Amino acid sequence: MIMSMSNLGIVRRNITRAAPEAVAALSRYGVATVHEAMGRVGLMKPYMRPVYAGAQLCGPAVTVLLHPGDNWMMHVVAEQIQKGDVVVAAITSECSDGYFGELLATSFRSRGAGGLIIDAGVRDVRDLTSMQFPVWSKNISAKGTIKATPGSVNISVVCAGMAVNPGDVIVADDDGVVVVPAAHAQAAAAASAAREANEAEKRAQFAAGKLGLDMYTMREALEKAGLRYE
Amino acid sequence: MIMSMSNLGIVRRNITRAAPEAVAALSRYGVATVHEAMGRVGLMKPYMRPVYAGAQLCGPAVTVLLHPGDNWMMHVVAEQIQKGDVVVAAITSECSDGYFGELLATSFRSRGAGGLIIDAGVRDVRDLTSMQFPVWSKNISAKGTIKATPGSVNISVVCAGMAVNPGDVIVADDDGVVVVPAAHAQAAAAASAAREANEAEKRAQFAAGKLGLDMYTMREALEKAGLRYE
Amino acid sequence: MIMSMSNLGIVRRNITRAAPEAVAALSRYGVATVHEAMGRVGLMKPYMRPVYAGAQLCGPAVTVLLHPGDNWMMHVVAEQIQKGDVVVAAITSECSDGYFGELLATSFRSRGAGGLIIDAGVRDVRDLTSMQFPVWSKNISAKGTIKATPGSVNISVVCAGMAVNPGDVIVADDDGVVVVPAAHAQAAAAASAAREANEAEKRAQFAAGKLGLDMYTMREALEKAGLRYE
Amino acid sequence: MIMSMSNLGIVRRNITRAAPEAVAALSRYGVATVHEAMGRVGLMKPYMRPVYAGAQLCGPAVTVLLHPGDNWMMHVVAEQIQKGDVVVAAITSECSDGYFGELLATSFRSRGAGGLIIDAGVRDVRDLTSMQFPVWSKNISAKGTIKATPGSVNISVVCAGMAVNPGDVIVADDDGVVVVPAAHAQAAAAASAAREANEAEKRAQFAAGKLGLDMYTMREALEKAGLRYE
Amino acid sequence: MIMSMSNLGIVRRNITRAAPEAVAALSRYGVATVHEAMGRVGLMKPYMRPVYAGAQLCGPAVTVLLHPGDNWMMHVVAEQIQKGDVVVAAITSECSDGYFGELLATSFRSRGAGGLIIDAGVRDVRDLTSMQFPVWSKNISAKGTIKATPGSVNISVVCAGMAVNPGDVIVADDDGVVVVPAAHAQAAAAASAAREANEAEKRAQFAAGKLGLDMYTMREALEKAGLRYE
Amino acid sequence: MIMSMSNLGIVRRNITRAAPEAVAALSRYGVATVHEAMGRVGLMKPYMRPVYAGAQLCGPAVTVLLHPGDNWMMHVVAEQIQKGDVVVAAITSECSDGYFGELLATSFRSRGAGGLIIDAGVRDVRDLTSMQFPVWSKNISAKGTIKATPGSVNISVVCAGMAVNPGDVIVADDDGVVVVPAAHAQAAAAASAAREANEAEKRAQFAAGKLGLDMYTMREALEKAGLRYE
Repeated sequence: MIMSMSNLGIVRRNITRAAPEAVAALSRYGVATVHEAMGRVGLMKPYMRPVYAGAQLCGPAVTVLLHPGDNWMMHVVAEQIQKGDVVVAAITSECSDGYFGELLATSFRSRGAGGLIIDAGVRDVRDLTSMQFPVWSKNISAKGTIKATPGSVNISVVCAGMAVNPGDVIVADDDGVVVVPAAHAQAAAAASAAREANEAEKRAQFAAGKLGLDMYTMREALEKAGLRYE
Repeated sequence: MIMSMSNLGIVRRNITRAAPEAVAALSRYGVATVHEAMGRVGLMKPYMRPVYAGAQLCGPAVTVLLHPGDNWMMHVVAEQIQKGDVVVAAITSECSDGYFGELLATSFRSRGAGGLIIDAGVRDVRDLTSMQFPVWSKNISAKGTIKATPGSVNISVVCAGMAVNPGDVIVADDDGVVVVPAAHAQAAAAASAAREANEAEKRAQFAAGKLGLDMYTMREALEKAGLRYE
Repeated sequence: MIMSMSNLGIVRRNITRAAPEAVAALSRYGVATVHEAMGRVGLMKPYMRPVYAGAQLCGPAVTVLLHPGDNWMMHVVAEQIQKGDVVVAAITSECSDGYFGELLATSFRSRGAGGLIIDAGVRDVRDLTSMQFPVWSKNISAKGTIKATPGSVNISVVCAGMAVNPGDVIVADDDGVVVVPAAHAQAAAAASAAREANEAEKRAQFAAGKLGLDMYTMREALEKAGLRYE
Repeated sequence: MIMSMSNLGIVRRNITRAAPEAVAALSRYGVATVHEAMGRVGLMKPYMRPVYAGAQLCGPAVTVLLHPGDNWMMHVVAEQIQKGDVVVAAITSECSDGYFGELLATSFRSRGAGGLIIDAGVRDVRDLTSMQFPVWSKNISAKGTIKATPGSVNISVVCAGMAVNPGDVIVADDDGVVVVPAAHAQAAAAASAAREANEAEKRAQFAAGKLGLDMYTMREALEKAGLRYE
Repeated sequence: MIMSMSNLGIVRRNITRAAPEAVAALSRYGVATVHEAMGRVGLMKPYMRPVYAGAQLCGPAVTVLLHPGDNWMMHVVAEQIQKGDVVVAAITSECSDGYFGELLATSFRSRGAGGLIIDAGVRDVRDLTSMQFPVWSKNISAKGTIKATPGSVNISVVCAGMAVNPGDVIVADDDGVVVVPAAHAQAAAAASAAREANEAEKRAQFAAGKLGLDMYTMREALEKAGLRYE
Repeated sequence: MIMSMSNLGIVRRNITRAAPEAVAALSRYGVATVHEAMGRVGLMKPYMRPVYAGAQLCGPAVTVLLHPGDNWMMHVVAEQIQKGDVVVAAITSECSDGYFGELLATSFRSRGAGGLIIDAGVRDVRDLTSMQFPVWSKNISAKGTIKATPGSVNISVVCAGMAVNPGDVIVADDDGVVVVPAAHAQAAAAASAAREANEAEKRAQFAAGKLGLDMYTMREALEKAGLRYE
């Protein structure tokens, strides 16, 4: 009974991933663009950083919930990975241990994983860099883990302050990690496209020296809000 | 369209609160007991602390999502409070400003609120203490806020690392804050009762000098796991 | 030449303190009120906390700049204290050492000091509490300091993120610490009085169950801003 | 072989505690005094805070090394407690879970423990307060732990940045926690006594308005060091 | 009246920038050299880091004070930028949002800005890197901001713990950010030159194996201070 | 007497370094491997980061204990460096100042040092990078230090949460820093070799798509522990 309350000890094999075309469409945009296009929501906390500069990732989430200092479920989630999936790992309490390294990256990649998002530490960062296996983590730590307590796979989790459901689209780059609910993936891609088209025009004007004050006609609003020039 | 993607700018007036008997039953137990009874899940991050020692709270959640430095929605959520409700406030990004003080506490109390859980700062802590209006917050700050951007009321939020749905039961005391999904409230109360009954017996044995090693018959398992005495 | 560049090694004996009537007037208001009355500016960072609950303080600042792990200048500043002054201590780099304890508190009090604001650690907190000598600090630490390098007294400093000039008024309570420039002290007191008068009326209405939505006539603005009810 | 390398999985039953007279002598002094008397060494990091104000503790250390999220060894160390001992708990990596609560406090107390120092979280703080069982911890958390991996008892550990050997004297109060090596306990007590005698005289002079500048004849040294008055 | 108290809502168009020759002279030295040459003052907190390795910057400050989660004033400050200026952005409370990205960098650059120092987050770091637009920030975050509340331009601000006046010289590199008051810029450049000349000689001696103990004739002072060799 | 209690003010010239063959053997392995091979102990806290990516280091420790904001002992420890030594620097309290830069790196290198591990800040990181002088530090800061108070050389210290004795082997890379007690160096190297041999086989199987679930035959244990598939 307790187990059904807590959703611990469960592996869900059948999840609904966001539509492949929506994932493909979203993969063209950066995190800041997608986040703005969705109405400025969906970002994980800014402490999540890529282990190497220039890392980029877009794919549906398979989720895993682990216990502090215990990476047993990393092997369980490996079996549920499909080509292009992004593993999103949450921990039941704050932990900085190194849950993931080069061997698991080799396993995940051979199963088709696109990368890993983990609210804890990882290790073998030199190897992950040379493999170009993209990982966003809370920190880097060589601290090893045990395999003693089952967690869960493909349940809803909170990772770095953001709720993630299995099948949601994860977009990650040097600016951070954003979560797009599967049901909104197509709309978010469309809104991102619109936003990016719009930015090209603005960029040209800014480069030509035009001020945002004039481009966005802000002067009147600022004056009404009380701004004074001296 | 964006708005429907992001759930920003919405007030849900009809939510399903956990059954009153389940809330009443849960109110008899502390946070540590309820958390253990659910299978060691549901806790907010430990940085959430009561503004005065001895604060206690149990009630169904009405949720509010606010923007950094903007407490406009606090007045919107006030209207949705029913007797005994606990307001759970999340912010769209990290913020330590003082969103709540004595005037809002007066308003919330007159609407029947039992207390507030907020992933940001609060102020007027001396007044909150003398009013005995229980608040758990990330920090204390006198920093004032503006009223410029709508957030949402009674949508699913992540507060201090834990997902909260409107109607879930919030239990809070000096040990922190635990979230009990409405559907599990009755079972969690029953499991808490069982746990507490069990603890009275253990307490007596510990007080009499019996060791946990013997009470839980751990010696063999420890030896098997490799523990050696010198 | 270097010394004049850095303002290190200087003690200014003549400073202009805020007018005593302005200080007296400000002493009637809490930190949140004064901060709001000034237009929401002047607060130190929220990590500054009183060493005991209920501490309150209002007085003109005498400032001191110290080096990491070195409290020599605490004895120099003691001589510059006049009755009612608040010592504001900044450090040239981040330091958590215990710069101040019961002996210095005895010295400061006998010189007339009202209290201490320090962007570092203090110790003997049990004694400070029983003496009711109010101190706001970054942390508590028993770590002792040396007396090796001169700093300065009564120069402009940055303490916990806020610029403080000698003679400015410091108001501190359980909500934090606010700095009122000497030239604005009278106006800030008047604005605080106006604000507080205004709050009594609001409090009564909130207590009677009136909503902020109606009291502040926010409903139209919220609707215009896009808020929808479901 | 690995085990002997790491000292994990060992319980040392025979340790040499500091002499009872030295412990008794040290129990008369506060943490700041003992720390200064030893030459300003021995303090744990200032994040270690008592769970209730006014807590005080002095006794020989029995040490325990635990794994993240695992409090199994708390039951093992309980058996090694002698009357007046202070349990010092270190974790093999950073962890904020609640390793200790009211039941274990009951057990520890019935074995004679004076208190607990732990570089992690504890829970049941209301009960610990009403029991007046003194605990210094990194944080407070209701998060429960498992019992899966053996650690060690009475080996040398690092707790909150300070090395602790079994038998060392732990002195703790509102200012923090200091570790006195067993071999220096008598000398530290004597130096503390000398220091405290000396402070009474200084206190009287400070209270009478004498400046530290004159009491310690600092004026010449400050001038030599370049201090100028304006 | 409130506005004049708080300096919020003001844009100062006429500021006195440090002399161009002094700026040019300072641009030859690194942050550590300038900081030491001024007498070890002027550094911002060490959490300020460049968004790409090797970034370097030297120029007069134009300052901007923004509200949490609101980057409206970034467009206002853009108009005040002159060739070579460094924008220094402070926030009225702690905020990690992404206030600045590639579009604003394009605008700032077309106005002549040399770079940005901001006590908050920035985004589009890959673009900023490829543009080689140097930025020092508290963190990186894709979190978008609103445009609702006026702040101020070219008033005195505190940025990352250091007071900055418009026209002061900002020197920034991989070691951090130092602020040189405009009036001291020429002297600081001269002192930096003297310091650097001096270092070349020391470097050669160190490289040849000479010890600092001998080069600085420290042995006697160390012995006097109590150092013993075993 | 105090001095002998605190071990401050002492330079030990004769220390026993780990056997050169053991150091050579350990130098073949990464931090994660050595840490696991020793039984998952010995790691410093994960906040210790290399100043440039790809830094690697292995050698016996010479230790130095410094005071906050004071790098005097860096010159004292320089004389005790032998070819291949790693300087391990601890501070008596928390400090982020820049204790070490290019000049001291030149001196240390000319004495034969392999690198530096410091629980504080360093500066001149661009120079350290171009010199390829490997340093692991808590942070980067240009803040200068004084030379006023003697610390000690080659005593036992705690650095970043780990006890280090002079002569212990330090292994450091992108994953962090591990300390190998001199007496265990040979055994740790042997265990690392065994571990690495073992990993090559696993890597091939993972790359071929074999699951850890099958390779480690975990399925039965997981089922026993309560894991269910849906």
